[in-house]
Amino acid sequence: MSPRPFVVVISGGTASGKTTIAQALAARLGERALLVSHDRYYRDVADPLTHNYDEPGALDTALLVEHLGALRRGEAATLPIYHFPIHRRLPEVETVAPRPVILVEGLFVLGDPAVRAQADLLVFVEAESDLRLARRLRRDVIERGWNIDQVLTRYLRDVREGYRRYIRPSRAYANLVLDGEGPVQESVEALVARIPSTDT
Amino acid sequence: MSPRPFVVVISGGTASGKTTIAQALAARLGERALLVSHDRYYRDVADPLTHNYDEPGALDTALLVEHLGALRRGEAATLPIYHFPIHRRLPEVETVAPRPVILVEGLFVLGDPAVRAQADLLVFVEAESDLRLARRLRRDVIERGWNIDQVLTRYLRDVREGYRRYIRPSRAYANLVLDGEGPVQESVEALVARIPSTDT
Repeated sequence: MSPRPFVVVISGGTASGKTTIAQALAARLGERALLVSHDRYYRDVADPLTHNYDEPGALDTALLVEHLGALRRGEAATLPIYHFPIHRRLPEVETVAPRPVILVEGLFVLGDPAVRAQADLLVFVEAESDLRLARRLRRDVIERGWNIDQVLTRYLRDVREGYRRYIRPSRAYANLVLDGEGPVQESVEALVARIPSTDT
Repeated sequence: MSPRPFVVVISGGTASGKTTIAQALAARLGERALLVSHDRYYRDVADPLTHNYDEPGALDTALLVEHLGALRRGEAATLPIYHFPIHRRLPEVETVAPRPVILVEGLFVLGDPAVRAQADLLVFVEAESDLRLARRLRRDVIERGWNIDQVLTRYLRDVREGYRRYIRPSRAYANLVLDGEGPVQESVEALVARIPSTDT
């Protein structure tokens, strides 16, 4: 029987670099790693214009915790697929088998006690708020072509408040704080050094 | 002979609220106040695309200090007029007479020893960097129609570094720190309470 998977939980504010780091780590670990994004667990949205994506209640974290439990027991899990353009979960699911390293990333995973209880390593990715907003605007306005006024309104109404209320305080739970303004590969190496190497 | 003018120096990062507060204070004090913006003293720019406006060397602060000295001695001063669209100072000047309260506002005035030596009250206006960037984008991109990519590039290249190197450290010199995220009128009242009332 293979050893229980090693679970790494990675949080940080919007555009802090958490997803980039988690994806680079997953690429570096290859077949050894499974990346589970909390974004998959967003609930269906009735009115996208007024909906607040930046509070924990917007996500079905209980389902994520159920799936993490299954994976840690060596069982498969059926991950939901959220489709952002229509603001709802697709009827299809994605069945995944456990792997030696499970990476869980998202805005609120570090702040959730039930997620933390499943984790072996708790990571917070830190970057100053102006750099995070600049990155988010590059992505949403320049790359995706969204309206800058709407992006700024949402940022000032929901994102900033969500960071202050839920995300920034969760930093206190981290075993490891990574510099989201620095080179991604340095963060990846810092993580690799803390993940037990398995010979499976 | 009228008493020596009371000089208030107001600094803060880009879009911190310093100019808004200084203008609201000037409006509140009416004929008693003269507002002198450090922006008037920008030097002529050769290449606007690569020019760094976010370091003290971009401004002729020696001339500002000369003018403050004259005003404090009860003499008139001939303030320069900078025209941002052509990135240079106009040949015309604006002659101003001293008033009981002189307000000096700008990014670097609090960090300059010669300006501080002329001041009776040193003020820093504080606002978090993401809010300041959001306000700047509203002004430059939404109101003025500038290109968001260029605004972000300049922010990340010059503005952010200038704040860290020159502006944020100058906060230590402040007698009074105002909340640039709060209501402007509260800041104005806090300032009025510290300015001696004169019956001229």
